[in-house]
Amino acid sequence: MKRNVIVGQSGGPTAAINSSLAGVYRTAKDRGANKVYGMLHGIQGLLQERYLDLSEYITTELDAELLKRTPAAFLGSCRYKLPEIHEDKAVYEKIFSILDKLDIEAFIYIGGNDSMDTIKKLSDYAIVTGHPTRFIGCPKTIDNDLALTDHTPGYGSAAKYIGTSVKEIIRDSFCLEYSKGLVSIVEIMGRNAGWLTGAAALAKGEDCEGPDLIYLPEISFDLHVFSDKVKELLSKKPSVVVAVSEGIRTADGTYVCELGSSIDFVDAFGHKQLSGTASYLASFIAGEIGCKTRAIELSSLQRSASHAASRVDILEAYQVGGAAVKAADEGDSGKMVVLQRLSDDPYQCGTEVKDVHKIANDEKLVPREWVNEEGTGVTDEFVAYVRPLIQGDVSPVMVDGIPRHLFRPYNL
Amino acid sequence: MKRNVIVGQSGGPTAAINSSLAGVYRTAKDRGANKVYGMLHGIQGLLQERYLDLSEYITTELDAELLKRTPAAFLGSCRYKLPEIHEDKAVYEKIFSILDKLDIEAFIYIGGNDSMDTIKKLSDYAIVTGHPTRFIGCPKTIDNDLALTDHTPGYGSAAKYIGTSVKEIIRDSFCLEYSKGLVSIVEIMGRNAGWLTGAAALAKGEDCEGPDLIYLPEISFDLHVFSDKVKELLSKKPSVVVAVSEGIRTADGTYVCELGSSIDFVDAFGHKQLSGTASYLASFIAGEIGCKTRAIELSSLQRSASHAASRVDILEAYQVGGAAVKAADEGDSGKMVVLQRLSDDPYQCGTEVKDVHKIANDEKLVPREWVNEEGTGVTDEFVAYVRPLIQGDVSPVMVDGIPRHLFRPYNL
Repeated sequence: MKRNVIVGQSGGPTAAINSSLAGVYRTAKDRGANKVYGMLHGIQGLLQERYLDLSEYITTELDAELLKRTPAAFLGSCRYKLPEIHEDKAVYEKIFSILDKLDIEAFIYIGGNDSMDTIKKLSDYAIVTGHPTRFIGCPKTIDNDLALTDHTPGYGSAAKYIGTSVKEIIRDSFCLEYSKGLVSIVEIMGRNAGWLTGAAALAKGEDCEGPDLIYLPEISFDLHVFSDKVKELLSKKPSVVVAVSEGIRTADGTYVCELGSSIDFVDAFGHKQLSGTASYLASFIAGEIGCKTRAIELSSLQRSASHAASRVDILEAYQVGGAAVKAADEGDSGKMVVLQRLSDDPYQCGTEVKDVHKIANDEKLVPREWVNEEGTGVTDEFVAYVRPLIQGDVSPVMVDGIPRHLFRPYNL
Repeated sequence: MKRNVIVGQSGGPTAAINSSLAGVYRTAKDRGANKVYGMLHGIQGLLQERYLDLSEYITTELDAELLKRTPAAFLGSCRYKLPEIHEDKAVYEKIFSILDKLDIEAFIYIGGNDSMDTIKKLSDYAIVTGHPTRFIGCPKTIDNDLALTDHTPGYGSAAKYIGTSVKEIIRDSFCLEYSKGLVSIVEIMGRNAGWLTGAAALAKGEDCEGPDLIYLPEISFDLHVFSDKVKELLSKKPSVVVAVSEGIRTADGTYVCELGSSIDFVDAFGHKQLSGTASYLASFIAGEIGCKTRAIELSSLQRSASHAASRVDILEAYQVGGAAVKAADEGDSGKMVVLQRLSDDPYQCGTEVKDVHKIANDEKLVPREWVNEEGTGVTDEFVAYVRPLIQGDVSPVMVDGIPRHLFRPYNL
C-alpha cells in the first residue's frame, strides 16, 4: 500500500469489533499504508468529516492489546442507510470528495447486513465512476445472521457469555424453593435469527441440565402449548428455566412482546424495537399456573461483555480485519471477508473474500433441522457448530480490580 | 471435634457462599469432625429431615475447588423465619431432636440478617434447655448490610461484577448517536442499603468517566430534580449513564417502582419484592426529555456471576467458614464470625467472633458522609472502602468453553 486507509464501524456494539479494528490497523501499517484513518460513527460521521488518525491512539503494542479487549465500537458506530445511487447522487459525491481529500486507497467497513449494503453501494458507485478506491466489508454481528460466512466475529463471545450466564441463572434458580415452583424466563437478543438464543444450550453439560426450553424466532410460538409444557415440567422439577428470543412471534406474526405492551418503535432500517418478551411471558405463566416467575433480560451485556470474551472469536475478528486490508491491497473491491470452516474436529477456520452483492440484506437463519421437532430446543448439530467458537479466554488487563479498556474522548 | 457438624445456607444466592461451605467442610474435617452434614434448603429442609453427607460430594481436592467456583447455594437455601421460642416450642423440639439424632456438635449457618436471627433463636433455646450443641453464624450477603462486620462475603464479587458491567454498559452507550442523546438506567439490587449501587462507581478510572449519576436507597429521590440533572448532563455529553438502586423512594416513602406498576408482593420477612425502577425512570425521562432511553436490570446475574468473582472475596468467604468451625470447636455459641479490617493500604483483614444478638435484624446502611452532598454519587472514601474487596480473580475451571461447577441433583 502506498496511500491511506480509512476504516469505520457500523451497527450494534460487540465484544470483538475492536479486535477487527486492531487487525485492520496492524495489517495496513505492515503493508506500508501511510495513514490509517478511523471514521467517527461510521459513514454518518464521515459525511460530517469526523475522523481521527488511529496512530495517535494506538501508540504501543499494549494499546493494541487493550483495543482488542475494549467492547463496543472504539470509533463509534451508526445505523445509517445510504440512499440508492439514483435517489441521491450528492451524498455519494460528498463521500468520494472526502475520500479524495484524505487520499484513501482502501475503505474498510466493519459491520453486519446493513453495513454490507453500504459497501455494496459505495463499490458500485466507484465502478460506475471509475474511482480507484477499494471497498471491503469486514463481518461483525453478534446475531450471526450474515450469509456466506460460516459465522460472524462477535457471535462467539456473545454465545460464550450467554452460555455462561444461563448456567449461572440455572444454578441461582435452584437455590430457593417455592410451593408451586419457579419459572425463570431469560430473554436473549436476535430479532429474526435464533443463533444467540440457541447458544443458551451451551449451559448444558455433565454438571448442568441446561435450559429446559429454548424458543427461537424462526419457529412460531404458541402461548398455550408453552404453558402446558411448563406445567408438565413443573410436575417433575422445582425450577424451570426458559430461554426465549426477543423476536418470538405467534402464528399470525404478532411479536409476543407486543401482546402485553404498546411499544412499537421502528428504527431507520424499518426494524421494530423489541423488549419485554420475557416480562410478558413471566406474567402470563404466573397468571396461568400461579407459580413464582421471574423475567431476566440479558440486555446489552450480551453484546458488550468483553470480560468474558471467547479467544477464538477475538483472534478471528483480528484475522478478518487483516484479511480485509490484504484483499483491498491485492486489488479486490465490493467484497466481504468471510470465515470458512475447514474442519470441526480439530476446529480449523480460514478466510476468503466473497462478492458483497451476494451478502447484503440477506439474513441467515437457523436451519429448521437444527431445531428439535417440537421447536423447544436445538439439536446436537447446533451445539457442535457453536462449541468451537466459544473456546479459550482473553484475560482482561485488570487494573485495580476492573478490566482496562482503550480510551478515546467522546467529544471528537 | 469428636462428633458431627451440620451446615446450612440461607437467604439469597451469592458467588461466594459455596466458598464458605468449602471452608466449613475443610476445617471441620481437619479438626477431627466425624461427619459433616449439609442441610438441604437450610432450616426449612432440616425440619423435613432433608440433609446430605458432604463427604459424598466433596471427594477430591478438585471438588473443593469447583465448589468454591460454583455460584448460588450448593445445598439449596430458604427464607424461613423461625417463630419466637414462646410462640411455638414444638418447632424447636423438632429441630433439636433431629440434631440429637445426627449427633451434632456444631451447627453452622451461612447467611444474612435473617439467618443470624435463626442462630440467635437456636442458641438461646440451647442455653435455656442446657443443650450442648453450639450455633455459629457465618456472614453472607451481596447486600453488605450486616452490622459489626467490616463487610460481608459475597459483596466483593457482586461489586466487582457491577463495576465491570457498568463500565461495559458505558462503553456500549457511547457507540451509537441519537439526536437528543441516550440515557441508560442501570438497576442494581439492594432494597435499603446502597452498597451494591455505590459499587457502580468502580467503573470510573483513567479510561472511563464512570456513571454520571448514582442514586442510593438511603437518600430520598426526587423525580423532577433527577430529570433536570439529566437534562443538564445531556447538554454536555451524548450519553448519560445512571445507576439506581431497586429500592429508591420518593420523600413520602413510595418506591419509585411503585409509581408505574402495581406489583406489591411481600415475602415471608415482610420485604416488598421490587422490580421495574429502571423501566419506570426510562419511560419517565423519555416522556420528559424526548431522548432515547433504555433500562437495564443487572438482575440475578449480579449475585450469581461466579465467572467474574473477586479473589479476595472468595478467599475471605473460605476463611470465614473455617473460622466459624474453629469458634464452635473452641466452645463459642450464639456468635457470628465477622471480618475485621486491619489496614487499607496494604489491605489486611482478619476474623473475630461477635455476639449474634448485636447483629441480628440490624441493617448497616451506607453512611451519609460517603454520599456526595447532592445525593448523586459516592465519595472517594466509599470507593477506598470497596476497592480492596474486588482485587484479584478466581479463574473458572473452563470445560469446553464454559465454567464448570460442582453438581448436586436437585431431587434429594
